[in-house]
Amino acid sequence: MQKQKSDTASLDAPEGVVGGAPLTVAIVGFGTVGRSVAKVLSSGMHPSLRLAMICNRGVERKKVDWVPRGVEWTESIEAVIGSDADIVVELMGGLEPAGELIRRSLQAGKSVVTANKQLIATHGIELLVLARRHKRELLFEASVAGGIPIVRAVREGLAGDRLFRIAGILNGTCNYILTRMDGAGLSFADALKEAQVLGYAEADPTADVDGYDARAKIAILIASGLGCQVNLDDIPCRSISSINNVDFMYARRLDCTIRQVSWAERAPGVDRQLFASVRPALVPLSSPLARVEGSQNLVTVQGEFGGANTFSGFGAGGDPTAVAIVSDLMSIARTGLGAEAHFVQQLEGQVSVGTDFTSPHYVRFTVADRPGIIASLATLLSAHGINIDAVLQLPGHDKAELPFVMTVEACPLSVLDAALADINALPFHVCRPMAVPILGAQGNS
Amino acid sequence: MQKQKSDTASLDAPEGVVGGAPLTVAIVGFGTVGRSVAKVLSSGMHPSLRLAMICNRGVERKKVDWVPRGVEWTESIEAVIGSDADIVVELMGGLEPAGELIRRSLQAGKSVVTANKQLIATHGIELLVLARRHKRELLFEASVAGGIPIVRAVREGLAGDRLFRIAGILNGTCNYILTRMDGAGLSFADALKEAQVLGYAEADPTADVDGYDARAKIAILIASGLGCQVNLDDIPCRSISSINNVDFMYARRLDCTIRQVSWAERAPGVDRQLFASVRPALVPLSSPLARVEGSQNLVTVQGEFGGANTFSGFGAGGDPTAVAIVSDLMSIARTGLGAEAHFVQQLEGQVSVGTDFTSPHYVRFTVADRPGIIASLATLLSAHGINIDAVLQLPGHDKAELPFVMTVEACPLSVLDAALADINALPFHVCRPMAVPILGAQGNS
Repeated sequence: MQKQKSDTASLDAPEGVVGGAPLTVAIVGFGTVGRSVAKVLSSGMHPSLRLAMICNRGVERKKVDWVPRGVEWTESIEAVIGSDADIVVELMGGLEPAGELIRRSLQAGKSVVTANKQLIATHGIELLVLARRHKRELLFEASVAGGIPIVRAVREGLAGDRLFRIAGILNGTCNYILTRMDGAGLSFADALKEAQVLGYAEADPTADVDGYDARAKIAILIASGLGCQVNLDDIPCRSISSINNVDFMYARRLDCTIRQVSWAERAPGVDRQLFASVRPALVPLSSPLARVEGSQNLVTVQGEFGGANTFSGFGAGGDPTAVAIVSDLMSIARTGLGAEAHFVQQLEGQVSVGTDFTSPHYVRFTVADRPGIIASLATLLSAHGINIDAVLQLPGHDKAELPFVMTVEACPLSVLDAALADINALPFHVCRPMAVPILGAQGNS
Repeated sequence: MQKQKSDTASLDAPEGVVGGAPLTVAIVGFGTVGRSVAKVLSSGMHPSLRLAMICNRGVERKKVDWVPRGVEWTESIEAVIGSDADIVVELMGGLEPAGELIRRSLQAGKSVVTANKQLIATHGIELLVLARRHKRELLFEASVAGGIPIVRAVREGLAGDRLFRIAGILNGTCNYILTRMDGAGLSFADALKEAQVLGYAEADPTADVDGYDARAKIAILIASGLGCQVNLDDIPCRSISSINNVDFMYARRLDCTIRQVSWAERAPGVDRQLFASVRPALVPLSSPLARVEGSQNLVTVQGEFGGANTFSGFGAGGDPTAVAIVSDLMSIARTGLGAEAHFVQQLEGQVSVGTDFTSPHYVRFTVADRPGIIASLATLLSAHGINIDAVLQLPGHDKAELPFVMTVEACPLSVLDAALADINALPFHVCRPMAVPILGAQGNS
């Protein structure tokens, strides 16, 4: 039925547009986001879309009475694939069976809208090619930065530019933890606990705290905005768990704060390489990145012609994420098919990820104090060709476990890492030196 | 030729997409923006588009040698309309003959991309209906906020939401003047002069300073984002020229600064009414509106489901504006036709603009000081049912021309205006009292 519909679609009455029949939607995964999508689709706001089916394991306990009569409830994915729904909204999460659902839905002639960042970051290109082969759409605005329409912005609104840098706060959990450490002086452990109580962080917070969640999102933005396909594992992540309260005090002295920054930049002059990372970084208080509070998200993109554009809003939550999903559904209702094909063809193909970027760094040492420490650090840094910019030491710390900070001028990360390996062999450390890059106002280093 | 092309377009090879012939583009108006568009189109970045024709009065003196060979130069609009260009980029500005060019181009089967805010704000709906009738596109991203893809964001990226408020800094000239008055202590006259020297302001700055430029832009956002058609003249404008240096000092005391804010909000509970205005306002320093520096633009939109999303970037300039235009061109190349039809049909039709919105206000009095002034002001305000929030008086002013400020609690603007009319009849004023609203962090009052 779907096939027949699209083959006969005319320019006068694209599917879903007023005058045509509404497109029918099946939601697979009826958690927080799924319920919000159902709520928006049941609101009567969008006559070009009709909620037809809801699929979840143990569906009986999921049923609600506020969806329109006639919505079919099922726990069978087969029933979804075999239905005549025009579009499947995949909200299962994870690689499988979500991937299988999407593949088979596309093969069955359905378009797909998904919020699944891990799947799109890992298999997005393959799935987009499959969608194209079946002349269907695969849209994934909700997979990055929740309700902020950033995928559409970089793919369409800024399509006329050549973007070369994307930097963002893409994980609301980390941003919540870091802003609470900064604002309320909480320890990392206490801020994490608070985030868990409020439902911002999972019981196992690894994916958020260690950067894997944000890595999937920046990988999707790299493909969507910079036109490069990267191997997800090639993007280095560093955890925010090594950040300490004292780091915020020192950061303040440098007119900075600390954020988990997801960052990607085309290597200038090198065609098929880019730099990318997800890591805690010092950002100037004047930077848009520093102004993101709580669980908000922000993305700033830099283009050759248009300069910097910044986008911010709610990066998570049922309702904002549902806006992204319904906006994708409406895009399918509005324009029909064919847009994705263009996107896949514009990709440069696999590019390598450089990790040895050059930036100034903040290095916090924690030492058992004794004379000559600064001198020996300075000697080793100098031996590696690294220039010290400043040495900061705030009063009031125990001499037996004394934190102090050096900022060093821009050098390649590999050079700093080599110097720190040597430095780490010195006998006075209470814990390993902690180094983070100091970014500029636009998220560049 | 164009007609035949689109009738035979298949889903496999939409016009302009790789494999199809590139769409040909004619630029009408070869000033700063036109040159930037030509530069981007000549860069080889966009193989789906080919610059074919450039039209300008006195074209001989406009010719440049860096456009591809084969580009036709003309000073005849008839030649453009009669050409086989697929898309006309209208950069003449003003209502006519730009309107005539667009109408006849659409009638001749061409799509149109324009940066013309006055024309779209005044005749946009009529032109969109015409485009629809001829099955062609009319896109106008560049008409609002330069390189920020805000029209696409509210029409597509946030299409799934129901937006109810839009607030923004839409005029870079005013923002430059106000930030220079604030940051450098310049007088309005000196800041304006500086903006003129730098090319940010016209010799006749009326359209910028008095708000007419921003009014056209907010009207376009009202139609695009709130789905309401308004009469441009119904949106009240107040000039920033009444703002004085002393206002910035008082604003600082209130943790605020002053910006020209364009603002529109659906009247809650009233279906076919909205409030809108373009005027100077006090905005909290913590607000995104306060952080817009120099000639940058910013728009924050608030939706029922997605909450607030904020977009910022370069609101003017040849290259950023060219990005918006080329992104529109690529949208036509990518999706073909039909999207606009949907937009026009979603419009609610003409709605009335309410101007009597309720907000707290800042009122600056300038008086020849004598005893009893505060008492007589307080009596009159109280007679109108207005509560005084605070009275501020900074030291160091001449008693013969003494500025001081009252902030008053939220009241309808009509009530304040009536009170100020009575107050203005009192004998101690050196100049008329100056009142501006105090906005909240999201640009609401």
